[in-house]
Amino acid sequence: MTAYPTGTFPATFIGGAAGAWRIESSTAIAGEPMPLADRLEVREGIAATSGGVWRLSGVAGHTRYVERPEKTRLDPVTPPLGRPEATMAALIPIRKSAAWWALPQDERRAIFEQRSRHIADSMAFLPRIARRLYHARDLGQPFDFLTWFEFAPEHAGAFAELVAMLRSREEWTFVDREVEMRLSR
Amino acid sequence: MTAYPTGTFPATFIGGAAGAWRIESSTAIAGEPMPLADRLEVREGIAATSGGVWRLSGVAGHTRYVERPEKTRLDPVTPPLGRPEATMAALIPIRKSAAWWALPQDERRAIFEQRSRHIADSMAFLPRIARRLYHARDLGQPFDFLTWFEFAPEHAGAFAELVAMLRSREEWTFVDREVEMRLSR
Repeated sequence: MTAYPTGTFPATFIGGAAGAWRIESSTAIAGEPMPLADRLEVREGIAATSGGVWRLSGVAGHTRYVERPEKTRLDPVTPPLGRPEATMAALIPIRKSAAWWALPQDERRAIFEQRSRHIADSMAFLPRIARRLYHARDLGQPFDFLTWFEFAPEHAGAFAELVAMLRSREEWTFVDREVEMRLSR
Repeated sequence: MTAYPTGTFPATFIGGAAGAWRIESSTAIAGEPMPLADRLEVREGIAATSGGVWRLSGVAGHTRYVERPEKTRLDPVTPPLGRPEATMAALIPIRKSAAWWALPQDERRAIFEQRSRHIADSMAFLPRIARRLYHARDLGQPFDFLTWFEFAPEHAGAFAELVAMLRSREEWTFVDREVEMRLSR
């Protein structure tokens, strides 16, 4: 059950008393909040631990909407995680509605990109904001996605602008639960 | 970890001494075979059992490639699982290569449908062959997909034709492990 293939990145986020990241704030943007915790540990793999106040798991891997011309533009400006200057981070778990998941692929893509410009308008924030998208829906988790962002303190304003932009678009009318956790190390 | 949302169908397939389905044959089409077992139990949910000779889990849910015009044609001819006359079944676990998963969405779709006609040419076999596609890659399973088929004995020939057609197309050059298990009840 736990032999993840090359190209996938399973991770477990554990909120509790331990971990490299301090949880500065945890805000419910839509739906129920997450229980409060002081620190966040990010562990590789789907950890079967019962430790911490809460645990969220997800798997990053292949792209679901990105097309070749976008990938060609994204790849050279996409920064790695773990840059030393990126001492701020955000974990934003998101759940989309049943109406979203009932749509066929072309209609989800049209809302995501043609109408909400998720990829095109996020690109302006690269390489300042590093990100990784973990998928959690097939894992029976309370969220469909765990979005993870890392940035230097001088780009905190850009990060706020990025999430405000995404939330203002049609795609976000399908988000029925969202919690924003801001972190520092 | 186990509260799956409406619209998802988690299942665990257990090969062993028990279960409603008799395993008539198990053939490695590509890569390693599966250990032999007499019977197959299909259990709802991601069962944490250690029973049986082998266990494979997956989650069926939203479509990954189907577009609206295809969905409109598929929905009215798609049969349910569990038809009383469908006393034959097949479980075909499949893994695709790293090269497949590295492709962006538009190039996977082009291979899948424009070049391999997976959806268009499978449609001729509906409603004779009922099917459900379980996704397993994000679960760290040894296969990416568990494909499940049910049909009446008089449509066994059509089933053989369907899988032979799929295997003859470009999409299948990306399949690096495949086992065909034929079942009856």
